[in-house]
Amino acid sequence: MAIHQHVLNLVELCVRKGIRQAIVSPGSRSAPITLALARHPEMTTRAVADERSAGFIAMGLAQQLRQPVILVCTSGSAVYNLAPAVAEAYFQEIPLLILTADRPKEWTHQQDGQTIYQTDIFGKHVKQSFELPADFVHPDARWFAERATNEAVNLAWAEPRGPVHINIPLREPLYPVGDETFQYPAVRVIEQLTAASALSSETWHRLQEEWETAERKLIAIGQGPHDPALLAILKKISEEWRIPVVGDVISNLPRNGEFVTQQDIFLSSANEELKNNLVPDLLITCGQSFISKQLKVFLRNHQPKAHWQIQPHNRLADPFQSLTRLIPHEPTAFFEKLFSDIDYQRFVSNDDEDSDDNFQEQWQTLDRKATRLLSQFLKDETVFHEWAVIQRILDELPADSQLHVANSMPVRYVNFCGMPENQRVEVFANRGTSGIDGCLSTAVGAALTTDQLVTALIGDVAFFYDRNGLWNNLVPANLRVIVLNNHGGNIFRIIDGPSKQPELSAYFETSQPLSAENTAKDAGLAYTKVASYGNLKTALADFFSKADRGKLLEIETDRYVNAEQFQRYKQLVQETFLDRQNR
Amino acid sequence: MAIHQHVLNLVELCVRKGIRQAIVSPGSRSAPITLALARHPEMTTRAVADERSAGFIAMGLAQQLRQPVILVCTSGSAVYNLAPAVAEAYFQEIPLLILTADRPKEWTHQQDGQTIYQTDIFGKHVKQSFELPADFVHPDARWFAERATNEAVNLAWAEPRGPVHINIPLREPLYPVGDETFQYPAVRVIEQLTAASALSSETWHRLQEEWETAERKLIAIGQGPHDPALLAILKKISEEWRIPVVGDVISNLPRNGEFVTQQDIFLSSANEELKNNLVPDLLITCGQSFISKQLKVFLRNHQPKAHWQIQPHNRLADPFQSLTRLIPHEPTAFFEKLFSDIDYQRFVSNDDEDSDDNFQEQWQTLDRKATRLLSQFLKDETVFHEWAVIQRILDELPADSQLHVANSMPVRYVNFCGMPENQRVEVFANRGTSGIDGCLSTAVGAALTTDQLVTALIGDVAFFYDRNGLWNNLVPANLRVIVLNNHGGNIFRIIDGPSKQPELSAYFETSQPLSAENTAKDAGLAYTKVASYGNLKTALADFFSKADRGKLLEIETDRYVNAEQFQRYKQLVQETFLDRQNR
Repeated sequence: MAIHQHVLNLVELCVRKGIRQAIVSPGSRSAPITLALARHPEMTTRAVADERSAGFIAMGLAQQLRQPVILVCTSGSAVYNLAPAVAEAYFQEIPLLILTADRPKEWTHQQDGQTIYQTDIFGKHVKQSFELPADFVHPDARWFAERATNEAVNLAWAEPRGPVHINIPLREPLYPVGDETFQYPAVRVIEQLTAASALSSETWHRLQEEWETAERKLIAIGQGPHDPALLAILKKISEEWRIPVVGDVISNLPRNGEFVTQQDIFLSSANEELKNNLVPDLLITCGQSFISKQLKVFLRNHQPKAHWQIQPHNRLADPFQSLTRLIPHEPTAFFEKLFSDIDYQRFVSNDDEDSDDNFQEQWQTLDRKATRLLSQFLKDETVFHEWAVIQRILDELPADSQLHVANSMPVRYVNFCGMPENQRVEVFANRGTSGIDGCLSTAVGAALTTDQLVTALIGDVAFFYDRNGLWNNLVPANLRVIVLNNHGGNIFRIIDGPSKQPELSAYFETSQPLSAENTAKDAGLAYTKVASYGNLKTALADFFSKADRGKLLEIETDRYVNAEQFQRYKQLVQETFLDRQNR
Repeated sequence: MAIHQHVLNLVELCVRKGIRQAIVSPGSRSAPITLALARHPEMTTRAVADERSAGFIAMGLAQQLRQPVILVCTSGSAVYNLAPAVAEAYFQEIPLLILTADRPKEWTHQQDGQTIYQTDIFGKHVKQSFELPADFVHPDARWFAERATNEAVNLAWAEPRGPVHINIPLREPLYPVGDETFQYPAVRVIEQLTAASALSSETWHRLQEEWETAERKLIAIGQGPHDPALLAILKKISEEWRIPVVGDVISNLPRNGEFVTQQDIFLSSANEELKNNLVPDLLITCGQSFISKQLKVFLRNHQPKAHWQIQPHNRLADPFQSLTRLIPHEPTAFFEKLFSDIDYQRFVSNDDEDSDDNFQEQWQTLDRKATRLLSQFLKDETVFHEWAVIQRILDELPADSQLHVANSMPVRYVNFCGMPENQRVEVFANRGTSGIDGCLSTAVGAALTTDQLVTALIGDVAFFYDRNGLWNNLVPANLRVIVLNNHGGNIFRIIDGPSKQPELSAYFETSQPLSAENTAKDAGLAYTKVASYGNLKTALADFFSKADRGKLLEIETDRYVNAEQFQRYKQLVQETFLDRQNR
């Protein structure tokens, strides 16, 4: 028996339950866990010193692999440094298995180092928190550890996925003697079978009835990965039934002339009459959060008669304040069955879909108008500003690559722009908590899982905040970091409230003078800087070319100019939408 | 009435209760709090973008000012980034008033940005957590906000001091219209009076009796700031009553030939016979944690018959597993009264202190021997290694300056060395949780409160981990940062367990290649690098000279050499103490 046999058992159980990746941060209390992972032949274990980055790197891995990833840290405040990533993973529903080493509980608050209150430390931001015993003399303790580990891993896999925590108090000695070989024993696997959600035919019938009675239907897709099957059925519904389908760029709903993606633009200046024309009788949603504040405000103020959310679990979120049915179903299968059932029904009764064609037409017309407006606005090269830069970056993104957009302005700009279908770029953003604290680290984690190019598009504040995502030996050659440097939190100059306060510069924008060059060099990234349209295109072509190390492109813009251009855009929108309506 | 009148009231109340300093991180949800602080004429408000650093900077301020400092952040994962500093402040008993902006509670987990479960988010790491209402229509809500703020600030001040949390849900609009002037109204102050702890004469009598019956007494001082009155009475007790007084460098107990400070050295190799000679009958302690692992292990394994802890509150910690009395008293006053009472008693009864003189003599002899051994060991200049470098740094520290020692090896090395009395240097370290996560930021916060030189002595891993402590517009000219760069977590190569594992380099030491130069330049610090004894002394003289900006000195050592030298030291200790005893 090894000195910490239960830790070996735990790791073996994780492997048998399909977990293959671990991120560890150095520490002595956690050494038994780290060694058990590092010595397991089927586990890939990577080390990251800063736990805050480690957490987001693990989350980036899990986000891409769609598997739980193990995250290990030592006892004490190290644990709290994981918390930002744990919260993001919880709300973004990404599975993590967090293994925190602890001192035996009797040492808490006894003036011994690296000991804090770790029991349930992540509060409601984990699906569940377990705590193993420190002693295994009684067989029930061994039974408990085995059972709890089974439950923890099962929970991480279960919908809605998310982080699960096991706190592991460990007694000294923490290190094995040098020549000990680890035996990973057979462990009992308690398998959690999953059942597909099957709505009764009576329930389907009720849904079909409600569907048929709703004249105007709107489908809105929240955040989610690129899902070809979902897009296929949505396209069919949009084309054949003339039902508008709207979504954000993080919904991975592409701009293809069919889907509506520019709602944040045209809803911002629509008058009441127009808005009333856009209100659906039945709203159907799936996926996670929406970026588009205009869509949220519009639907909250103009509530549909009914709102169905399709999701494979029962967690109730009501972001439009209009939810009437939670439908426990996998969305793609739901839409497919709905389509074929209703299609069959109509075939039998020789009916047509009697949606209001004009309803989709209005959404799509506004969408096209907004696309044209934006294209016009961004084409102008008289001034160099961030938004126009971003459009040019999006235009040059290599096909079949990944884009991680950081919070604050980048994700908003990219959402305004949308992503054309032929780009074949999958878009990610940390919209679980919408923090700037781990956007870069998440991209690093994601890049470790693929040979695709992974581009992180990030503002200077988010970049420096999370620069320790680059402070490790993992940064891969397929990583591309674009730092949009306007030397501060430009968003505060752009949005209405703070830009009018005398404290804007000192307490909101908090200007910072750094260039990303030193950080890039320290991280071993090839560095280029651009500050005009002239060399942007060439720089981008070179930047996106394959290389044997990662690259960082810094694009410097002027915060005053960015804010002015945003004002100019708003005026254009007003002229295009509001004024025309009023004429 | 302002749109968030209760926030103005809260700030006014804080000012009336003596709070004058605030650290804020940018955010929109927190804007009402930030503006209320920034516009209050008696409040100094500073902005720091990275909340993790902001937390530790606020803690450094509060540590020096011995006053609660306000710490503000916006809603969402930002709050969790404060948590490492909150935990450190809790265990180090430093007062903070944490004001976290929140969305109104009904928006939690509704897929809206920057919204997490903030109620009680810091768990047991705050003295108490309050949550204000979002609506103030009912007068009881206003009464509650006023009462809760009073209680929160009173608690932050009360012994044991520590962080107190107020979660503040805020409705939009968050920003006032441009021309609104803020009125800070008269608010009701609920004063918490404090009472000095007065032990009854009967209690004193019982304590005196126990004192008199204990033949061997040992006084051990835990972490605490430099306290001349405490040192004076301890010196008197040591000199006149021949009672050994031991303490760590973070106890700010100086090396003066009287106090015992080298216990970590001589206890490591003392044999059982010698240890038995060192066991007290009565152990008296005050202050917070001890670094010296040898002292802890020695006292746990050789328990005194009685152990008194003198502290002005009732929180029970038993780090030596021998505590028999918690004495609720301010330590200096306790020792002074004990001394004068017993002195008077003896005068009356014409008695002498009948302590075992030989007992103190043994402690002091070992201490002197350890001092000589170390001095001999560190004098050797044949190899350049970290410990010898640190001794030379300590020798050159300017008098009346502050030293902040980072966790992991630096605090251990400095504790081995001790601080001579004539240096007049006050020593701080984050020994509440002993994390490396905020050592640099704490020093930055401390440096903002004084004109003294503030030196941070920090290893490369802790430095880069916390480098965002330098990423703000606050870094003052009196800050000196010494980075001991051995390119990894050298401690794991130095201590026994991990150094023998094949995973040492990849998962424990986690080598990192960076030099601190780029970070220094980015932060606007003057940068010098030293890698030999030759130019160390000159470099230090220049480094400690006054300047109009802060400075960073990087000292590069070889991790293998450092580990070898530590082994050599251990052998020397063995030869000096263990072998001689056995002869």
